[in-house]
Amino acid sequence: MAYEPSRSLGALAVPDRLLLTPGPSNIHPRVAGALASPVIGHLDALYFEIMDDVQELLRYAFQTSNRHTFVLPVTGMGGMEAVFTNLVEPGDRVLVCVNGFFGNRMCEVVERLGGELVRLEAEWGSAVDPAAVRRKLAQERHLKAVAIVHPEASTGVLHPLAEIGAMCREHEALFIVDCVVSLGGCLLDVDAWGIDAAYAGSQKCLSAPPGLAPVTFSPRAVAAIGKRRSRVPSFYFDVLEQFRYWSEERVYHHTAPINTVYALREALRLLHEEGIEARIARHARNSTLLVEQLEGLGLAPFARPDVRLPPLTTVRIPTGVDDRAVRQRLLNEFNIEISGGIGAIAGKVWRIGLMGYNSHPRNVYALSHALRAILGRG
Amino acid sequence: MAYEPSRSLGALAVPDRLLLTPGPSNIHPRVAGALASPVIGHLDALYFEIMDDVQELLRYAFQTSNRHTFVLPVTGMGGMEAVFTNLVEPGDRVLVCVNGFFGNRMCEVVERLGGELVRLEAEWGSAVDPAAVRRKLAQERHLKAVAIVHPEASTGVLHPLAEIGAMCREHEALFIVDCVVSLGGCLLDVDAWGIDAAYAGSQKCLSAPPGLAPVTFSPRAVAAIGKRRSRVPSFYFDVLEQFRYWSEERVYHHTAPINTVYALREALRLLHEEGIEARIARHARNSTLLVEQLEGLGLAPFARPDVRLPPLTTVRIPTGVDDRAVRQRLLNEFNIEISGGIGAIAGKVWRIGLMGYNSHPRNVYALSHALRAILGRG
Repeated sequence: MAYEPSRSLGALAVPDRLLLTPGPSNIHPRVAGALASPVIGHLDALYFEIMDDVQELLRYAFQTSNRHTFVLPVTGMGGMEAVFTNLVEPGDRVLVCVNGFFGNRMCEVVERLGGELVRLEAEWGSAVDPAAVRRKLAQERHLKAVAIVHPEASTGVLHPLAEIGAMCREHEALFIVDCVVSLGGCLLDVDAWGIDAAYAGSQKCLSAPPGLAPVTFSPRAVAAIGKRRSRVPSFYFDVLEQFRYWSEERVYHHTAPINTVYALREALRLLHEEGIEARIARHARNSTLLVEQLEGLGLAPFARPDVRLPPLTTVRIPTGVDDRAVRQRLLNEFNIEISGGIGAIAGKVWRIGLMGYNSHPRNVYALSHALRAILGRG
Repeated sequence: MAYEPSRSLGALAVPDRLLLTPGPSNIHPRVAGALASPVIGHLDALYFEIMDDVQELLRYAFQTSNRHTFVLPVTGMGGMEAVFTNLVEPGDRVLVCVNGFFGNRMCEVVERLGGELVRLEAEWGSAVDPAAVRRKLAQERHLKAVAIVHPEASTGVLHPLAEIGAMCREHEALFIVDCVVSLGGCLLDVDAWGIDAAYAGSQKCLSAPPGLAPVTFSPRAVAAIGKRRSRVPSFYFDVLEQFRYWSEERVYHHTAPINTVYALREALRLLHEEGIEARIARHARNSTLLVEQLEGLGLAPFARPDVRLPPLTTVRIPTGVDDRAVRQRLLNEFNIEISGGIGAIAGKVWRIGLMGYNSHPRNVYALSHALRAILGRG
């Protein structure tokens, strides 16, 4: 053969890191066990049962009775793309609330699809005020949808959403919500809050491996897709085509990422065993403990206290402290990964995740001990 | 909480099936081990090394020195979508060769993107003649691309491709090839054959779990993307954006499906250890053995003998034999899965995969024994 690899490649050897980032998180041993279970066929009746289980457990996680609740064979970012690709046609006007990196990414996705973008901005570190959404809905020419990132992972802010769904209904707009970092870690009530389309990622508070995007669509959203003027421009992202595979029709659409779906099922079982209320309380408790520990080291939280995102804490990097050097020492000496800032606050904050399986006091103490040693503080 | 799952969901328990379908295939124990390795971060320098390894091993598998050789976080179907989404703009004329289900799906993808479709058909079970491609290229107004499914998985036909790349270059058309069932199991020489864009799936002859699409783009394809009149309509499928993460830039694009990439790396290492020539010879040998065994049972192959696809054999279902009943007995009594026909030949053929790890005489004998018992023949 003409092409030979340029180097020798040994067996895989990855360290057992503590992942305190905005994801992926470490996975529970039961989830790892499910992941490595034997592959079966994507059209096997036993696999269809697993799909049904996942749908039912996801309805619990999202708190929705939406029939169209299932999993897309893409990452959380692909979940965002799929939702907008189905709900936004060229010329459709969409209000996007922006208070960080992922709000900006929503804007990019809408623009690439030919949507007409209306931005509503809030400072990074604070939340978009629902009253401002109400004003925009009243002022602007008809908006097809209002989109917001529930947990903005760039800043560690959790948006209050409970009032927005009703406003959207008044103005006949769809309510699109990014739940990538909140599903399974924060209060989220898709039906009670009037959310029409939501997407998440498998690797955050659900603590399954990355690669899957749980999604849910309300009957209003499904009807809106049915009334499109043009075909969905992508077969892969056509969620009604995908749903023909997830529903009783069982029409072949793609070869499912079977092993990752096994793992997601087990991760969702763990959520159900713990119970959502207990899960949310655990995330809140460990986040409070983390903030106390960080403040004990003289570090100041970045996100405004009233809108902090429990699974993901942002903290300002003190003047004179070398962002990368600290993170390198955490990784190399303590096997702990935390994340730097992205977008407008790159170099200015650290982002520390305590998500799902990782939301535990032992991890808070491990990190604060390591940071104390590195920063020489406290 | 308002929504509770409607049934109790036990621990995952999947049987150890022999998967003799067009995919997924069973995975080597070393691949299963890699899959369940600890999760590390998608921006960890150690993960970047794994990405570099995968790229280099994929260049070997595709036989290409293309810099833009990497993995998309989607299934093989998503690989198809990504290639066309980047290379076809509204109004672009594309010749699609169709001799089965997946050629038809290419047509649907092109049409949804607003491309102008030119179809070149061959009967199901036979191949599109390269001479017919030459005639079309000469007759038709400028074609931006010629697309063909190398291994048509619906019919078990392998297209001869070696001459088509040069024709495409003469006519300044891009040459797009679906290698989903051929990569790692059939002769495929991306550079020598002048292929400009190719995509595959992780779960076929590479025998990694499903969920990833290896892709490669020639410098001509990359230049064509650079000369687009409009932005790629999808951020997720924008392969140059994706490549910024796979190249030295390491720009965050999405959270990689880390565990599945581990598994793919190990599967590619197995390919390299065996060597491509030995791998191709093994697939050819076991396919010949299978056809002999099937003919011994009085079953007739469906695909024309000169264009048979070694990793996937199609065979006619004899008159009076109940397709579903036989497949159910194979599954329930022998734990062996084979596939029925799809599209125009649903109910008329069985499709039997011997792909990657599964291409082994023991599997041929296991199946022929089981079929003999069920059909009462031979």
